[in-house]
Amino acid sequence: MSLDDTPLSPLMAPLLTAGPLKVWSVAVTILGDACQTPQDFILGRGLDQLMRPLGITNQALRVALHRLKRDGWVEAEKQGRSSAYRLTQQGWASTEGVRPRIYGADVPAQPVWMALAPPDLNSAEMEDLLPADALRLSPRSAILAGQPEGLEEWVLTPMQATPPKWLYEALVPQELAQDYQTLAAACPDLMAAQALPEETQAVLRLLILHHWRRLRLRHGALPDLMLGRDWPGAEAAQRIMPLLTALPRADLNRLNAA
Amino acid sequence: MSLDDTPLSPLMAPLLTAGPLKVWSVAVTILGDACQTPQDFILGRGLDQLMRPLGITNQALRVALHRLKRDGWVEAEKQGRSSAYRLTQQGWASTEGVRPRIYGADVPAQPVWMALAPPDLNSAEMEDLLPADALRLSPRSAILAGQPEGLEEWVLTPMQATPPKWLYEALVPQELAQDYQTLAAACPDLMAAQALPEETQAVLRLLILHHWRRLRLRHGALPDLMLGRDWPGAEAAQRIMPLLTALPRADLNRLNAA
Repeated sequence: MSLDDTPLSPLMAPLLTAGPLKVWSVAVTILGDACQTPQDFILGRGLDQLMRPLGITNQALRVALHRLKRDGWVEAEKQGRSSAYRLTQQGWASTEGVRPRIYGADVPAQPVWMALAPPDLNSAEMEDLLPADALRLSPRSAILAGQPEGLEEWVLTPMQATPPKWLYEALVPQELAQDYQTLAAACPDLMAAQALPEETQAVLRLLILHHWRRLRLRHGALPDLMLGRDWPGAEAAQRIMPLLTALPRADLNRLNAA
Repeated sequence: MSLDDTPLSPLMAPLLTAGPLKVWSVAVTILGDACQTPQDFILGRGLDQLMRPLGITNQALRVALHRLKRDGWVEAEKQGRSSAYRLTQQGWASTEGVRPRIYGADVPAQPVWMALAPPDLNSAEMEDLLPADALRLSPRSAILAGQPEGLEEWVLTPMQATPPKWLYEALVPQELAQDYQTLAAACPDLMAAQALPEETQAVLRLLILHHWRRLRLRHGALPDLMLGRDWPGAEAAQRIMPLLTALPRADLNRLNAA
């Protein structure tokens, strides 16, 4: 039985509606998960085999791959009658950069700072200086993680407060909380998932991973660093990490030989 | 020799121009320093004897005492041909309240917080909730000391940052720094001061204490708590505290008997 014919398990149905499945984004999820070195590639028909069970047509896949090539994420190389797709150097670097946030059960420990900008900075200058995942709290204050540079004129003091409700809601917007809850609820039971045929398990893995990745990339490390296990993202992780550990990666050798 | 005749020592001249000598304020300095219990009093002529060397006329003193009685700081009681002045209950409580800041070489250790107001507070509500000696840093942030109450919805995190220049200047406005430097420079050498006649020493003490008190009451505990010994107020203290320890308090028994 080839993946082509993999029946969509009823276990997957809730995951198909748990959030958007943008084709180019699903393709990046698959490449990032299946390719473990910068040299690894997937043939076009292998991608097609993994995506068809998700209701993604070959035409939609071609459009997405064209876009990913144009944007410098993916490069293609003729291999006989098929094309081999791999991440570009830039695509690989970006993928490596976010891997710990997607596959790591815990975010790496980092200091969290309450930061106050000097009075002569305007809002745009402040935005330029702040790390991308800083959380602006007021015109001149923000919370940020890590070891920021270029903030010598700022007041930076370690953040050691239990967030009041308004700060919690700034860290975890209601929509994000709901999306994590929806995803966790859509995931099948671990034992039921492991009872599926191996090819189906690989597709299930990609479906879970795609949604998980989509949500993880929507925010920085602050919710985990400040809220620990006490928020919907961490609760979803407790359901999802065991599934990602148990469900097998798509097998590149088999896919490319098929 | 009575205080009345105390010659103004040339050592005092720089102190007479080191800052304003508002008569009512000098009177409060004297009452707070000389009266060590709520029952202690000074006769009007005793006050006059202490203030005349500072160039304060008896008429100016009467006006000031009238104002202090009207404002509830001081109460008077006839004693023969003279009046006895003491602090009211309220005046005594206020005096006791600031005593540690004026006579203490070090401010009592207190936590210092960086505080961020919840987004739905307007500026006036924020002002109402903040302690009087909090330092507003931006529309929604402030630094404050102690154990503030009623700020449950605020983010309060211990302030553990070395202040950048703009924050130092907010903590220690340039005028305050200059006034402390002027006062420290105007103070006589300890040994020279101790060589003065005792009555002159008592007047010198009041002059130094008055200016010191005036500056200390212009700010809260934040500069000391955040800057330690590294600011002009602390540098002035190192010059002034030994003088206040060495120079004798005005002797109430002798003053009231004079």
